[in-house]
Amino acid sequence: MERPTEDAEQLAEFLTTGQNERVAVQLGALHPGEAAALVRELPRHLRDDALLALPPAQAADILEELPDDMAAAAVMDMEPDAAALIVQEMQTDEEADLLQDLSADQAQAILEHVDREDAAIARRLLSYDEDSAGGLMQAEFIAIPQGMVASDAVRQLRSRAVEYADYPASYLYVVDNAGRLDGVLSIRSLLLCEADTGIDDIKLSNAVSVQADMPAEELVKVFRRYHFLAVPVISDDGELLGVVTHDDALRVAEEQADEEMLRFTGIAGGDEFRDMPLRRRSGHRLSWLSINILLNVAAASVIALYQETLQAVIALAVFLPIISDMSGCSGNQAVAVSIRELSLDRIRPRSFLWVLGKEISVGLVNGLALGIIIGLVAWFWKGNGWLGVIVGAALWINTLVAVSIGGLVPLLLRRFRHDPAIASGPILTTLTDACGFFVVLGLASKYLYLLN
Amino acid sequence: MERPTEDAEQLAEFLTTGQNERVAVQLGALHPGEAAALVRELPRHLRDDALLALPPAQAADILEELPDDMAAAAVMDMEPDAAALIVQEMQTDEEADLLQDLSADQAQAILEHVDREDAAIARRLLSYDEDSAGGLMQAEFIAIPQGMVASDAVRQLRSRAVEYADYPASYLYVVDNAGRLDGVLSIRSLLLCEADTGIDDIKLSNAVSVQADMPAEELVKVFRRYHFLAVPVISDDGELLGVVTHDDALRVAEEQADEEMLRFTGIAGGDEFRDMPLRRRSGHRLSWLSINILLNVAAASVIALYQETLQAVIALAVFLPIISDMSGCSGNQAVAVSIRELSLDRIRPRSFLWVLGKEISVGLVNGLALGIIIGLVAWFWKGNGWLGVIVGAALWINTLVAVSIGGLVPLLLRRFRHDPAIASGPILTTLTDACGFFVVLGLASKYLYLLN
Repeated sequence: MERPTEDAEQLAEFLTTGQNERVAVQLGALHPGEAAALVRELPRHLRDDALLALPPAQAADILEELPDDMAAAAVMDMEPDAAALIVQEMQTDEEADLLQDLSADQAQAILEHVDREDAAIARRLLSYDEDSAGGLMQAEFIAIPQGMVASDAVRQLRSRAVEYADYPASYLYVVDNAGRLDGVLSIRSLLLCEADTGIDDIKLSNAVSVQADMPAEELVKVFRRYHFLAVPVISDDGELLGVVTHDDALRVAEEQADEEMLRFTGIAGGDEFRDMPLRRRSGHRLSWLSINILLNVAAASVIALYQETLQAVIALAVFLPIISDMSGCSGNQAVAVSIRELSLDRIRPRSFLWVLGKEISVGLVNGLALGIIIGLVAWFWKGNGWLGVIVGAALWINTLVAVSIGGLVPLLLRRFRHDPAIASGPILTTLTDACGFFVVLGLASKYLYLLN
Repeated sequence: MERPTEDAEQLAEFLTTGQNERVAVQLGALHPGEAAALVRELPRHLRDDALLALPPAQAADILEELPDDMAAAAVMDMEPDAAALIVQEMQTDEEADLLQDLSADQAQAILEHVDREDAAIARRLLSYDEDSAGGLMQAEFIAIPQGMVASDAVRQLRSRAVEYADYPASYLYVVDNAGRLDGVLSIRSLLLCEADTGIDDIKLSNAVSVQADMPAEELVKVFRRYHFLAVPVISDDGELLGVVTHDDALRVAEEQADEEMLRFTGIAGGDEFRDMPLRRRSGHRLSWLSINILLNVAAASVIALYQETLQAVIALAVFLPIISDMSGCSGNQAVAVSIRELSLDRIRPRSFLWVLGKEISVGLVNGLALGIIIGLVAWFWKGNGWLGVIVGAALWINTLVAVSIGGLVPLLLRRFRHDPAIASGPILTTLTDACGFFVVLGLASKYLYLLN
C-alpha cells in the first residue's frame, strides 16, 4: 500500500530469501499486536509465508490482530492443512469470524483438517448471525458446577491452568447439571474468600446475561451501561453457550461508528477499503449515487418551470447552486446531530416536536445570518437591493426548512426501521433543493418588476 | 425531553410530593446504569432531588452513569456541601471529569467540603489535559511492594477487601520503594500460584504502561492493539500515577467516532446536543457555515463569467446545481473513506499516489455511469443530443476531479496537522463546484453552435 518501514523491509528480505528462522526470531520478539502491524506492511503474497514461518499458536495470535480482510486473504493463500494448524489455535470467536470471511468451500476445506471437537465448535458459532451476541461470543469459558467450595474451585482451576491461560481472565461461570447459567463469580472474590466458602455464597446470582440472538448494537449498549469485562451468552432455555468480552464490544462500537460515517456519505453497507477490488468499491458508491442523481433531476426540474424568469434575470442562475448547497450543509448538520442523538439514546424516534422546536430556533438564527450575507453579496454585485432581499429571504426560509427536515428525517427513518445514516442525505437534498429553487424563483417571478 | 415512561412518571410523582423513601426504594432496586436511565427521563429540576434522596455512595454510582452534561447540571443544582458528599464517593476519574465540567468557582466550592486526601487527588487529576491518559486515569489501583510472596499479597488484599471492592478488578501493580512501576500481576496468576511463590516470579515485567501525557487517541490504539483490561499510567520518571480501564477507552473511542461525524458536517468541536443553549448550538454550526457560504460565492462567481452562454442556453441553468451536488456527493464519499482509513491507520498521510490511483479508477467508472444518466436526461428533455454529450462529459470529468480531490484533501490536511473531518468538505465543495461550472459552461461556450 505504500513504502514499508525498515523493519518490514528486512522482514520481506528474510521471507524472499527463505530465511524462515530469522523471520521467526524477528516476529517472535514482538507482542502479537506489534507483529501484526509489521505483517500488515508486507506485500500480500508474503503475508501467508510470514505466518507459516512461525509456530502455529504464535501465527494464530498474530492472525487475530490482523484486519479481517487481510487475515482472510492470508489464509486463502495457504494450503488448507497448513491453514488448519493455525486456525485451530485461534480463539473460537476469532476463528469463526475468519471462516465467515472465506468462501463456504474454503472454510469447509480447512475445517476438514481441524480437530473434531474444535471444528464442531466452529460450525456451531458459524450458525449464528455475525452481528449478534452468538456471532461475537467465544466458546472458551470457565464453568464450575453449583455447590462447590472455594478451595475445590481453585484446585480445579490450577489443574487446568495451562488450558485456561488464554481464556477471558476475570469471571467464572456457575452452572447447574443441565449446563444452565446459575451465577457469575469474579476471580477476585474467589481469591479473597476463605477456603471453605461455598461458591454459591459469593456468586452474583442476578448477573446480567444476554441471549445469543441479541443484535450487536444492543450488546454494545449493555457494555456501555454495565461496564462489564465480559458478558455470558445463553440459549433460550438458559444454557450457557459462550462469553462476549469487552474488546469485542469495543471493536463493534468502533466499527459501527465508522461505518455510520461511510453510510452517511452513501457508501452502501458502510464498508469500503481502497484495497478492495474496483468492482466492489465502485458498486458500493454507485448504487447510492445513481438514486441520488435521479432525485437531483427531479428537484432541478423545478428550475425548468421558471425558465422565463431566469431568462429575464440571469443573475439568479448564480445563486441557485449556492442556495442548494448551503441548505444542504445546514440540513446535514441537523441530520448528523439527530443520528448521533439517536445512537446515544438521547432522543427517541417519536420526539418529533421537541426536535422540531430546537431546529426551528437554530434555523431562524442561522438562516437570518446566512441570508444577510448572501443578500449583501447580491446587492453589491448587481446594485439592486431587491435582488438581495429576494435571494436573502429565500435562503433564510430554505435554511429553516432544511434544518427542520434534516432534524426530523432520521427520526422518521428510524421509526420505520430504516437506516437513517444512508437515506437521510438524499431525502434531505431532494426536498430542500426543490423547495429552495421554488422559493427563490417563485419570489423572483412574483416581484420580477423590482428586479429589472 | 419527551414524554417519560411510566416508571419515570412515578418517580417524578414521588419527588414532587416529597416521598423520598419511595424514591430511594425505586432507584435502589436498580443497577446504577438502569437507575441513571430513569433519572435521565426526569425533568432537569428533579434530577438533583432524586440523587439527594439516595445514600451518597448510591447517588455517586448513578451520577457516574449519567451523560457528562446532565451530571454536571444536576450537581450545579445542589448545595456545595451536599454535592461534596456524593462527589467524594465517585471514582476519582469520574470525579475529575465532573469537576472539569463545572465552573472553576463551583468546583472549588465543592472541593472545600470534600475530605482532604480525596480533594488533593481530584486536584492532581484536574491538572492533566482532559484528553490525555492522565485526564482519563483513576487514582484507585492496588499496588504491592516488590519482593512479597503470594500468600502475603493475598493477605494484604483480604485486609483491605472492602476498600478494594470498587477498584478495577483484574490486575495488581508491583512497585519499588520509590513508587515506580516494576511489573503487573494478574489476579488470576495470584490465585493459581502456590502460596510461597514470590510475586516477582509471576509478575509480567515487560508490561505495557503509558505516560500521563499520552493523547487519548493514542491510548485507544494501545487498547486496540493489546486488548488489556486496564493500563497503568506512569510519570516521566516511572512513578505509577493511576490506571486507565477498558471502559474509559471504549467511551473515548465512541466519542471520537461520533464527533468525527459531526465535524464532518461542520459542527465545530464535534459537540452538539439539542439540550445545549441555542447560542452554543447556533454558533457551533454557524462558524463553519459562514466560511462555507463565502467559498460558495467564490465558486459560483465562475457562473457569472458565462452569463451570455447561459442566456443563450437557459437549459444549462437546470444542470448546474445537479453537477455541483453530484460532484459533492462523489467527492464526499472519497473524503469519508480517506478519513476512516487514516483513523484506522490503513493509510499514511504520505500515500498520495496510491490513493490517487484508487480514486481515479472509481472516478472513471462512476463518472461515466453518472454522465450517461444525466446525458440521456438532457437529450430527452431538450431533444438535443449535443446538450446531453456536453452535460454528461462535464459530469464525468468533474466526478473524476471530485473523487481525486476528495481522496487527497484529508491526507493533505492530516499531513499539515489539521483536522480532516471539519475542513475537507468546504475545500472539496469549493474546488469541485468551481471546476464543474467551468467545465460545463466552458464546453457549452465553445460548442454553442451545436446547442441551439
